[in-house]
Amino acid sequence: MSQAKKCRVAVNGYGVIGKRVAEAVARQDDMELAGVADISTDWRPRVALQKGFRLFGATGEHTQAMRESGLEVVGNLEDLLGVSDLVVDCTPKRIAALNVDIYRQRGIKFIVQGGEKHEVTGHSFVAEASYSSALNRESTRVVSCNTTSIVRTLTALKHAGLLRRARGTLLRRATDPWESHLGGIMNTLVPEPEIPSHQGPDAQCVDPALDVITMAVKVPETLAHLHYWSVQLTRPASTEEVLDAFAASSRIALIRTDAGLSALNTVKELMADLGRPHDNLYEVALWSDMLKVEGDELFYAYMVDNQAIVIPETIDAVRALTGTMSNAKESIAKTDATLGIGLLTQIAGRR
Amino acid sequence: MSQAKKCRVAVNGYGVIGKRVAEAVARQDDMELAGVADISTDWRPRVALQKGFRLFGATGEHTQAMRESGLEVVGNLEDLLGVSDLVVDCTPKRIAALNVDIYRQRGIKFIVQGGEKHEVTGHSFVAEASYSSALNRESTRVVSCNTTSIVRTLTALKHAGLLRRARGTLLRRATDPWESHLGGIMNTLVPEPEIPSHQGPDAQCVDPALDVITMAVKVPETLAHLHYWSVQLTRPASTEEVLDAFAASSRIALIRTDAGLSALNTVKELMADLGRPHDNLYEVALWSDMLKVEGDELFYAYMVDNQAIVIPETIDAVRALTGTMSNAKESIAKTDATLGIGLLTQIAGRR
Repeated sequence: MSQAKKCRVAVNGYGVIGKRVAEAVARQDDMELAGVADISTDWRPRVALQKGFRLFGATGEHTQAMRESGLEVVGNLEDLLGVSDLVVDCTPKRIAALNVDIYRQRGIKFIVQGGEKHEVTGHSFVAEASYSSALNRESTRVVSCNTTSIVRTLTALKHAGLLRRARGTLLRRATDPWESHLGGIMNTLVPEPEIPSHQGPDAQCVDPALDVITMAVKVPETLAHLHYWSVQLTRPASTEEVLDAFAASSRIALIRTDAGLSALNTVKELMADLGRPHDNLYEVALWSDMLKVEGDELFYAYMVDNQAIVIPETIDAVRALTGTMSNAKESIAKTDATLGIGLLTQIAGRR
Repeated sequence: MSQAKKCRVAVNGYGVIGKRVAEAVARQDDMELAGVADISTDWRPRVALQKGFRLFGATGEHTQAMRESGLEVVGNLEDLLGVSDLVVDCTPKRIAALNVDIYRQRGIKFIVQGGEKHEVTGHSFVAEASYSSALNRESTRVVSCNTTSIVRTLTALKHAGLLRRARGTLLRRATDPWESHLGGIMNTLVPEPEIPSHQGPDAQCVDPALDVITMAVKVPETLAHLHYWSVQLTRPASTEEVLDAFAASSRIALIRTDAGLSALNTVKELMADLGRPHDNLYEVALWSDMLKVEGDELFYAYMVDNQAIVIPETIDAVRALTGTMSNAKESIAKTDATLGIGLLTQIAGRR
């Protein structure tokens, strides 16, 4: 594919991630949203049509049912893949593994999400860590929200030569806001029974050199995850050095409690005030005035919007797989510009 | 005071801690609850009378107001102190510091709670760590719930020769259950703006040799605190060694997720089923099947009932100050027996 020709991107699954990916793809001038495929007949695909997206049924049967419910459906997934250069699979956990056979049979490039195993594609993607090894591959897996945040932050410390090992405690939002009427937890905390939790090994799928161990607990809120980290540095460092290391990544926003961003909800409100779609927080929002260095130890906390953080990575992954841009920095800068990434530190930022 | 004569204990402040201390004192055969003092005229002191406790007003004015509201009040705080050997101050944070002058003028021994500064008494108390240095002192301070849990667990590791340094993340309940209609937080997380949080230095008030750093965050639930710890051991150890170290403390209950204790609420329900007053969890409830040793590193999580954990310590502190028992182990065993401590590991325990 030449740089002049737009990459035609299919989105399979129009849920929490799919709808955000579709919206982000539509903002890229080097991509074209070929269409979105789903199985639902409720309000969700109707919004896709409202936005002018071409809608497809996941199978012939789904296409028929969707048409019977009054939805304007172009065709089924096979039809969508026929007019696409790449498909981003945003179907629920474990379903993508089944779709992969279809993608491979058709010889179409594909991206799966972090709910799938690394082995499904043999490559795990975070733009700042593994863009170059994804170049022109058949497929990759954009890792989960928590893993993305871990790789972004630890890669930043690694690039500055500061990372020895990292130990994290992850407070996981109980369920997504749009699904919180379907179940969740109230007035309790539910530890994940396994220590270490899976996010550490998952980060090592992207960068096997990371010395990282995590513990996780489910908390009764829906807004975002919150991480607490104790990091052993390679040497004693100053707070400024550490902040500089994080600031070198555009995907890490340094925010301040004394700018009024004292809790998850206030950060989300700022995203809404910025007019971002779905109030998306694409960045790791790391509190610079909370961060503490004690000798060769570093302590900090950050917020992870589990619905949004992987969106810029997915856009970059499209460029890497199709070889549209060979340089990670170039793609990251382009994605950032289209999604408004970079404003946050300016508004409520480092100092 | 001879061992034959019961220690007469006054409780000043009949709130979350005071009512539990009064109930626990009433269960001791070497103590006598001289009475409880408060300022309230609502339902709370009425329950104290219902239990047969002698009620006093904090000042003459309060005594009068309480009498006018129909409460049967014996006298004021000065009268109560006159018939007591020791007073446990359970008034709200910072108020005890003012009462201390009264106690000192009267020459009565006193205990303050963890909301006060270490300097108020010059001694900070956790039975397993500082009983002997409290013997026959004028006063001590029973440290806060979180600090108590930290000193108990790290002391257990220290006694086994395993502790090098400990780094913890504390999930703090937003408010107490009985006060949750007065304010709290909903559907968000509120990091404490200062890293490290105050609990690490506070633990060092009890044992200056502890190398401990903590971070804390407020979570939207009311049941208990939850701690996650990454501990560097003095050497690689087996899981059994570590569990043995914790099991050596009766105030640490080893519980299991696979016994159904998979979250804070299920542990509290077990306390209710055991018939404990106020469903009190006096122990640090540490999940033995979640605990993990990796080389010389140890990871674990435990639950802290902020309303109950200091109650057995307060009983032990009474014995230490009055010199009733010179041996910490003897006092701890007696307190444990009266409060039912020890059952938990048997019921849902180590393996």
